[in-house]
Amino acid sequence: DEIIVTNGAIHAMYLVASLYLDKHSSVAFEDPGYPLARQTLALTGAAIVPIAVDEDGLRVDDLPTDGTRLKFVYVTPSHQFPTGQRLSLQRRQALLDWGCRNDVLILEDDYDGEFRYDIAPLSPMAAMCESGPVVYFGTFSKTMFPSLRLGFAAGSKALIKEMSDYRKVTDYQTNTLSQLALAAFIENGEFEKHVQRMRRLYAQKRRCLRDAIANTELAGELTGTDSGINALIRLSTDISATNIADRARLQGIFVTPISRYCQSASVADNALVLGYGAVSEAQIAAGIGKLAAIIRAAG
Amino acid sequence: DEIIVTNGAIHAMYLVASLYLDKHSSVAFEDPGYPLARQTLALTGAAIVPIAVDEDGLRVDDLPTDGTRLKFVYVTPSHQFPTGQRLSLQRRQALLDWGCRNDVLILEDDYDGEFRYDIAPLSPMAAMCESGPVVYFGTFSKTMFPSLRLGFAAGSKALIKEMSDYRKVTDYQTNTLSQLALAAFIENGEFEKHVQRMRRLYAQKRRCLRDAIANTELAGELTGTDSGINALIRLSTDISATNIADRARLQGIFVTPISRYCQSASVADNALVLGYGAVSEAQIAAGIGKLAAIIRAAG
Repeated sequence: DEIIVTNGAIHAMYLVASLYLDKHSSVAFEDPGYPLARQTLALTGAAIVPIAVDEDGLRVDDLPTDGTRLKFVYVTPSHQFPTGQRLSLQRRQALLDWGCRNDVLILEDDYDGEFRYDIAPLSPMAAMCESGPVVYFGTFSKTMFPSLRLGFAAGSKALIKEMSDYRKVTDYQTNTLSQLALAAFIENGEFEKHVQRMRRLYAQKRRCLRDAIANTELAGELTGTDSGINALIRLSTDISATNIADRARLQGIFVTPISRYCQSASVADNALVLGYGAVSEAQIAAGIGKLAAIIRAAG
Repeated sequence: DEIIVTNGAIHAMYLVASLYLDKHSSVAFEDPGYPLARQTLALTGAAIVPIAVDEDGLRVDDLPTDGTRLKFVYVTPSHQFPTGQRLSLQRRQALLDWGCRNDVLILEDDYDGEFRYDIAPLSPMAAMCESGPVVYFGTFSKTMFPSLRLGFAAGSKALIKEMSDYRKVTDYQTNTLSQLALAAFIENGEFEKHVQRMRRLYAQKRRCLRDAIANTELAGELTGTDSGINALIRLSTDISATNIADRARLQGIFVTPISRYCQSASVADNALVLGYGAVSEAQIAAGIGKLAAIIRAAG
């Protein structure tokens, strides 16, 4: 009664958005943030209000106090996309309090929550406060694969009932063969083993990334590696990240300037987002060497 | 470029509806008609304008000429749901002409188009007029099974592009494993064999239904059996179909009064819809005997 299975986390978010948002609504959204979720929420015509993030995640103190009526606050607490920081426990509590006080629903997207290294877990906000103003989104796109199209939302019975009713007249139900196959994979313990295997694999790639960077002038500029499969390199040069990314692409190195994920033009374009999940250790080592040389030449 | 794969026909219809309808729109819809499609279109806030059907399907002459601005006309030409009649060739041409003249898009739902007996096929409207004002919906829910969640729409490149863009930010894509499995099943010829097998099976059940009814007072009242897996029994009694269906249910016979599918209260509740796809020949024979007795007793 408190969980709905959907065609991925974005689908679940779309259902909530369709039920509650229109062109008169506003949603607070991490900036930089996950572009697809921003597009999905904006599809309803709602205004997206950018809120800055720092090393503790969303700056809860920046949420509007000027009477802007928000419907939702969207956050990625486990691994802020794309900075890779976690929402601190203190911020989680502050956001929950703020949500209760202002009667605003928190969309907790547990993005990359399964891939966490060396650090202790933090409780999801959905678990911190029974019947709190939180709807939690999970996906099997990262732990399994995106074309499986399986995700879910957990929330109040009333909300899940509304989502179920709405989804029934929009695409009826989620493919049951995939659900049965995944359920069997979970029940026989293989899913947990698979996630552990992938966590070890990604941890090894991350170690390789850290080692490669430690040997360059970029040492100390790598952040966001406590979880997930992407990290951030801060640039201390005056050249924009977009410029660096363009030069890198010519050498076959694909990195993304942070500005690609920013809504507000005031966020400095001074960092590169590196995805390391799908590249080999050899590619990581060689790529970081070339990238450092490009930044050196540009600086 | 002219086809989009979706999570069933309803999902495809929902995408078109989301793109083009709002609370100021109107859609012409068969009455009686398919309730789920009606709900899906109505979800956008659009007004649903009921149009009567007869033995040749939608009464095209009844489409509003009073200036009511329609966005879509929804039809099930292969097997009108629930009366089971086909849209005649003349009506198809008339509807196409009307759509062109009034710049109204025709939603052609090829409901049960695969299950046709003894009669020659009629061309889908989508095939009668290149770049005509038609979007064609197909599903594998009936030929395969509903929880497969595979269907499609075929339309103009511009429309399909819009649908693809919209669907990308609402649920991203359709499960690819199911698509690959179905594609293999189609390519190796098994799908066509399966449909032929099911067609023979349903034709046999339909024969059984006809034979059973021929032995009762209901002889001559059975219609809609040229295609599909449901048929209609007209009642000549003054008792409502709802009343008969209620009495039948008490004896374990599940039939649906036509009023369940009607939007306008002016359609007489004087027919029963019988689904025969999922019941055995023995159940059909016994059930029709009991149903005839119930109608006799009620009359």
